Amino acid sequence: MVRPDFKKAGGLIPVIAQDYKTGEVLMLAYMNDEAWEKTLETGKVHYYSRSRNKIWLKGESSGHVQLVKEILLDCDLDTVLIKVEQLGGAACHKGYRSCFYRRLENNELKIIGKKIFDPEVVYGKKA
Amino acid sequence: MVRPDFKKAGGLIPVIAQDYKTGEVLMLAYMNDEAWEKTLETGKVHYYSRSRNKIWLKGESSGHVQLVKEILLDCDLDTVLIKVEQLGGAACHKGYRSCFYRRLENNELKIIGKKIFDPEVVYGKKA
Repeated sequence: MVRPDFKKAGGLIPVIAQDYKTGEVLMLAYMNDEAWEKTLETGKVHYYSRSRNKIWLKGESSGHVQLVKEILLDCDLDTVLIKVEQLGGAACHKGYRSCFYRRLENNELKIIGKKIFDPEVVYGKKA
Repeated sequence: MVRPDFKKAGGLIPVIAQDYKTGEVLMLAYMNDEAWEKTLETGKVHYYSRSRNKIWLKGESSGHVQLVKEILLDCDLDTVLIKVEQLGGAACHKGYRSCFYRRLENNELKIIGKKIFDPEVVYGKKA
């Protein structure tokens, strides 16, 4: 059974989600073995939330689910790259297409990403 | 001073290196604050090696240095995406262009990456 080396990594491995068409890097989050299994079973990316200590179906609140198109493993089997179709057009809980929506320029962060939705509307005021 | 939140992440943050022209994800490694500083100072990507417990100029053995083209920070300031020019054409110590040279297919790993160099020639027999 091919799987990442969760033991070596202390239980959690970083997972990069990349848009399967444009190549844009959308986000990085973590998986444990259960999130990995659920992702393979359902074809929808599941992560492990380190802050909430639980498995998390990406898009369970927002509807912005990530459909698995391709899974790549790195040379050390401790990082995963998943090419996804990002439903709803936005991966970031701040409403941007990608979590990497800010560029470092002259020691400042310049917003370069495209805002797709208003987090207050999608998640309520707490977002 | 804009910088990733190294404290929140326990000292090390994951860094994704992406080819600045093709969008190919080349590798993931880690930085501590010193590696971050050296990367900004030199324009060459430095990582922190968790196995060797030291700062590491990517390409110091192989010559396959990564020149910084663009630095993006994520919404939580705990992951970095660096767009790079990959000198020598290969990021992976196994000789492939990208560390993500294997695709999961029918529960097997299929090599889909392009091999650029022979690790035995570049690093000697130990690689």
